[in-house]
Amino acid sequence: MPRQITAFSNSTVKLLRSLRDKKARRSSGLFLAEGLRILTEAREEGRLPEILAFALQGAQHPLAQEMIAAVEAAGGDCIECPPDLLSKMSGKDNPQMLLGAYRQPDTSLAALDRGKSDLWVVGEKLRDPGNIGTILRTGDAVGAGGLILIDDSADPFAVETVRASMGALFTQSLAQASWDDFLPWLRSGPGQLVGTSLQTEHDYRDAPYEAPCFLLIGNESQGLPDAYEAECDLLVKIPMSGKADSLNAAIAAAVTAFEVRHAWRNR
Amino acid sequence: MPRQITAFSNSTVKLLRSLRDKKARRSSGLFLAEGLRILTEAREEGRLPEILAFALQGAQHPLAQEMIAAVEAAGGDCIECPPDLLSKMSGKDNPQMLLGAYRQPDTSLAALDRGKSDLWVVGEKLRDPGNIGTILRTGDAVGAGGLILIDDSADPFAVETVRASMGALFTQSLAQASWDDFLPWLRSGPGQLVGTSLQTEHDYRDAPYEAPCFLLIGNESQGLPDAYEAECDLLVKIPMSGKADSLNAAIAAAVTAFEVRHAWRNR
Repeated sequence: MPRQITAFSNSTVKLLRSLRDKKARRSSGLFLAEGLRILTEAREEGRLPEILAFALQGAQHPLAQEMIAAVEAAGGDCIECPPDLLSKMSGKDNPQMLLGAYRQPDTSLAALDRGKSDLWVVGEKLRDPGNIGTILRTGDAVGAGGLILIDDSADPFAVETVRASMGALFTQSLAQASWDDFLPWLRSGPGQLVGTSLQTEHDYRDAPYEAPCFLLIGNESQGLPDAYEAECDLLVKIPMSGKADSLNAAIAAAVTAFEVRHAWRNR
Repeated sequence: MPRQITAFSNSTVKLLRSLRDKKARRSSGLFLAEGLRILTEAREEGRLPEILAFALQGAQHPLAQEMIAAVEAAGGDCIECPPDLLSKMSGKDNPQMLLGAYRQPDTSLAALDRGKSDLWVVGEKLRDPGNIGTILRTGDAVGAGGLILIDDSADPFAVETVRASMGALFTQSLAQASWDDFLPWLRSGPGQLVGTSLQTEHDYRDAPYEAPCFLLIGNESQGLPDAYEAECDLLVKIPMSGKADSLNAAIAAAVTAFEVRHAWRNR
């Protein structure tokens, strides 16, 4: 049976609240996801939260009932809280009525199944958690295997990332590595490294993309370092018509990824 | 000469701080933009802030000096503040060293120069200020005329929108209208209304886009209402390979807009 908890000072409540901070996520190895839709998607991927917090009105839905039963059967902790407590935990004024604390997966390159897909996104020093989540969501839509975060990126387990991913954090693979570790790993198997750059005349719409393809997306404000561009097997340029000379990182990833997918469809 | 202000209680400081709230933006008709890069881009578009706040270290750059002189010459108010005051105004821990309060432009459809471009984005009930900013930034890159916000959208003059637009708020046109006002306006001139939808077999890569083209992007969680889809001259579908059946609104706008631009390039 779920425990009923109403006190802000309860240790489980404190733990869940703490997961909005990167330090607590790192020390506990947990992260938060919210909402019946995303939690159900996680469950379809075989992922259950270790702790499930819900408000009474969030537990009415049959899928929520199943979720509670599944978490309890798996030995997880289910707690029922008033909505204002859930609100404190998620940091949202209008909290979702379900909140799960999940174990972070192994994000080492060694754990990545690179044969799972022929398309991967590689993000260099991405600093915006929302961008990381949006790239994961796009990766799911375009049939990518996942996202490899290079060097010092924002925490992919931030609440903002999970929200923006709309559940894709559970369907896309995720790895974190330094460039120096990534490069030998990449070259240990087949894979074309494709960078977007302003320093090439190769239009992204007319480029010889090869499978498997690893799309390298640069940091939001600096773009790719020259040394990283030099390692690419192919550089492509997205033409710009306006005053700006850059795109949002998630937009650049999406425009290129959809192009690669389309180019292959016509092979 | 710029005034030096150090007091949080100063009325100009209070006004600038208040502009993070929608109500204050509406009543004052002003909005905030930050950073030398964006403020310079605005100036190149002939837009100067009515109030310019800066920290001493932000005023060293020649472009900042020119900006201060230009604002003063135009009768604007220049104030020099300590960085912690700027931080309070922008709501950022690491504030940009320049902050401008700009007059909001007329966002009526009547003020829109629809002949300015052959490509426009129309957003229906967009709720995420970051998405609106990202769409403006993408619009600039793809040579769109601007963004028309339909029905009840997030405030396009929110600090988050201006930031995500990376200056495109000053280069792209912006209008706000109800659907009932937009539709007769659209039909009063040439224009193909194109919606993205799951309820069509028309692949977005193989669609007869006509200029001028108005790309209609639906709300982040609901997508386009059926009645709005029914008004479209063309519905296109972006194929999805994963578990998800939707894209982030800014991603959908970008993928489609780049496709339209490319299709026309080959005419």
